[in-house]
Amino acid sequence: MASPLRVGLAGLGTVGASVVKLLVANRDAVATRAGRPIHLARVASRTPKPDVDLGGATFNTDLASLGAADVDVVVELIGGDGAARTLVETALQAGKHVVTANKALLAACGDDLFAAAGRQGLSIGFEASVAGGIPIVNALRTGLASNRIDALAGIVNGTSNYILTAMEEDGCSFGEALARAQQLGYAEADPTFDVEGIDAAQKLAVLAALAFDTRIAFDGVATEGIANVDIEDIRHARELGFSIKHLAIARLREGGVEARVHPALVPESLLIAKVSGVMNAVMAHGDAVGPTLFIGPGAGGMPTASAVVADLVELARGTLATPKQASRQLASSGVGSVICPHYLKIPAIDKAGVFAEVADVLSRHKISIEAVIQRPPSSSATSVHIVILTNDIAEREIETTLAELGGLAGVCGPITRIRVADLDAMMPSA
Amino acid sequence: MASPLRVGLAGLGTVGASVVKLLVANRDAVATRAGRPIHLARVASRTPKPDVDLGGATFNTDLASLGAADVDVVVELIGGDGAARTLVETALQAGKHVVTANKALLAACGDDLFAAAGRQGLSIGFEASVAGGIPIVNALRTGLASNRIDALAGIVNGTSNYILTAMEEDGCSFGEALARAQQLGYAEADPTFDVEGIDAAQKLAVLAALAFDTRIAFDGVATEGIANVDIEDIRHARELGFSIKHLAIARLREGGVEARVHPALVPESLLIAKVSGVMNAVMAHGDAVGPTLFIGPGAGGMPTASAVVADLVELARGTLATPKQASRQLASSGVGSVICPHYLKIPAIDKAGVFAEVADVLSRHKISIEAVIQRPPSSSATSVHIVILTNDIAEREIETTLAELGGLAGVCGPITRIRVADLDAMMPSA
Repeated sequence: MASPLRVGLAGLGTVGASVVKLLVANRDAVATRAGRPIHLARVASRTPKPDVDLGGATFNTDLASLGAADVDVVVELIGGDGAARTLVETALQAGKHVVTANKALLAACGDDLFAAAGRQGLSIGFEASVAGGIPIVNALRTGLASNRIDALAGIVNGTSNYILTAMEEDGCSFGEALARAQQLGYAEADPTFDVEGIDAAQKLAVLAALAFDTRIAFDGVATEGIANVDIEDIRHARELGFSIKHLAIARLREGGVEARVHPALVPESLLIAKVSGVMNAVMAHGDAVGPTLFIGPGAGGMPTASAVVADLVELARGTLATPKQASRQLASSGVGSVICPHYLKIPAIDKAGVFAEVADVLSRHKISIEAVIQRPPSSSATSVHIVILTNDIAEREIETTLAELGGLAGVCGPITRIRVADLDAMMPSA
Repeated sequence: MASPLRVGLAGLGTVGASVVKLLVANRDAVATRAGRPIHLARVASRTPKPDVDLGGATFNTDLASLGAADVDVVVELIGGDGAARTLVETALQAGKHVVTANKALLAACGDDLFAAAGRQGLSIGFEASVAGGIPIVNALRTGLASNRIDALAGIVNGTSNYILTAMEEDGCSFGEALARAQQLGYAEADPTFDVEGIDAAQKLAVLAALAFDTRIAFDGVATEGIANVDIEDIRHARELGFSIKHLAIARLREGGVEARVHPALVPESLLIAKVSGVMNAVMAHGDAVGPTLFIGPGAGGMPTASAVVADLVELARGTLATPKQASRQLASSGVGSVICPHYLKIPAIDKAGVFAEVADVLSRHKISIEAVIQRPPSSSATSVHIVILTNDIAEREIETTLAELGGLAGVCGPITRIRVADLDAMMPSA
């Protein structure tokens, strides 16, 4: 058997420890598939983890030391784009391949790193950076490589999907669902990153750049989290035949890319509406294959380690594709080009004529009403919620309409607006 | 750019013509991803197809001529294991790579072909042989390569899934659904191959060999088609919370492989129960990643061409894994090791005491009854159907039980028995 692939691993958090464990547990199977052993030679972590059996690897608390170590590949599992970036750049300069789970780094400067690797004929494996154990990067790089991909859509943040599922299935509030997610280790103590959609936006930037062969500015992704979705919205949506999911959507448009992350009403007839809990799902639509959907665990130690070690296997056998610098930079249109139906929840004074005022505004904007839900107010309440499902509206039109509705005397609070996913034609249906 | 990959294509049926079309349509995108052009140099087909624009490729009606032609890779889209086998063997002997969509050939002698290719350092791409455009072969070869796969389950025959979906959604009979599938081009004039499960069994043999690293005898796959499922069974199943799907299942068992293809009741709570029409879905369960599910178009010209050309892209850039001869031959246990709940539909004389007789037989075999459906007979009928959902039963036990039930005086026709899919713990749920 050929000489081993020597691995230097940076970071011993949940994923790092799982990679160590997986390399030991499946050592023989991995060596058979790779055609040579994969040898964990060095591990670096700021904090030593005496509980993790490193199987004889040399340990060091100096992360930067790995860049200069005698290894063939540096596995970067530190996260963020500070020390991680320095380590990856140093490793590439020193002629080492890189495997990383770091979507923040790739969203910030992936294209530059790919260019640096490409110049030296080095590979960067990043399967673990998006959707955990689902081999979606691999599918876009190879299995669907014959296609022009024109759309991606997915549930790529397990924390948000867990919270929305708990609200839908168990009727708990956003706060209760978040607390439960934190108890179970599905959400961080500071959940901002997940709940406000930043994590999903970074993942979308990585996938869209790959699928559409374009540099994509991370700040060109329109980003909205799930904090404004309440249990009432979920119930209303269900009544109308929809599930509310936090979607990351990227589509090729005339001369640009539409990239956006936001909650959306998804028709129950689409399979992705049924993806629950911490599961992730990514749809890729290609001109030859049509719609494909990949589902699996999107986070967690072992699923993410599955992706890291899969990249190492490919690297060991020499089949990991050298990443390419994107050949173009398409303009990013965010939500500007979106035309879709909308769900509106309008808090209104319980008084004759208010509905007519609302309907009049919609009518003047040529927005037609597809469905309405309005319940009799409880005896103590002085306001009601008017819930309206509209037909297709362009983004600019809905913005001016919302401003006008907000100015009506009968409207007594902030209006909730949630887009309806306009993906029917592209998604496998249930 | 490097010299082109020269392709010789055998077979101009639906898939062959689509491959030609796709190579032309996405020529530039494919060349960019492959790092070099993919050039269709020669095409051979027994029957000339003047309608297909071959883009300047040399045409020949002698299929065997491709084996000796000046091409780098032979794409075999003839089907069957006669002329196709000769062509593939000749091509490998002449030092050419092979890409094939031929599950029958691979199920019959894939391991020998892999060995022959391996001896010469040649690749065999077979993404198109299973589940059309879904890159499941690629996922098992690379994206999940860090895992020990312990189970596969899937809907891999689009014709059968179309028929079952039409029966479930539109209430048509098996015969009507089949006729409709034939009209739409989803089923052959002679549907035996699809409807009796042979196609699915061949695909399962290909996937299981790859996932479990074993030679697998195709005739070791227990095979049962959908012809005995009737509309009543589908309605009863739905009432009990299940959908009836034609599943291909392979699991690692103590010292062997359990490989089987049969209709099964699938709990509505599993995502795979929602995969409808000609869509395919394959679940792979790995020790690190857990459950993953891949969904997409399982047949048709362009989706299958998507897989063929993806293999060509990988071949062109040198990242298509060289197939390995399996390192072992695990014993095939067919359905012998299956323990699962069963759905039984027992035609019985409408007379007091018959149900008690049935219950007594089940009780003596320690089979407990989880649910019963029995409707009052129509006024003209002299018999009723007793529908029973059992707890877990081992295969041998159910066989003897069925024989005994069949011998009861009150049982007046053949008993329908359908297994319940025992996959809950391994499948992403809806």
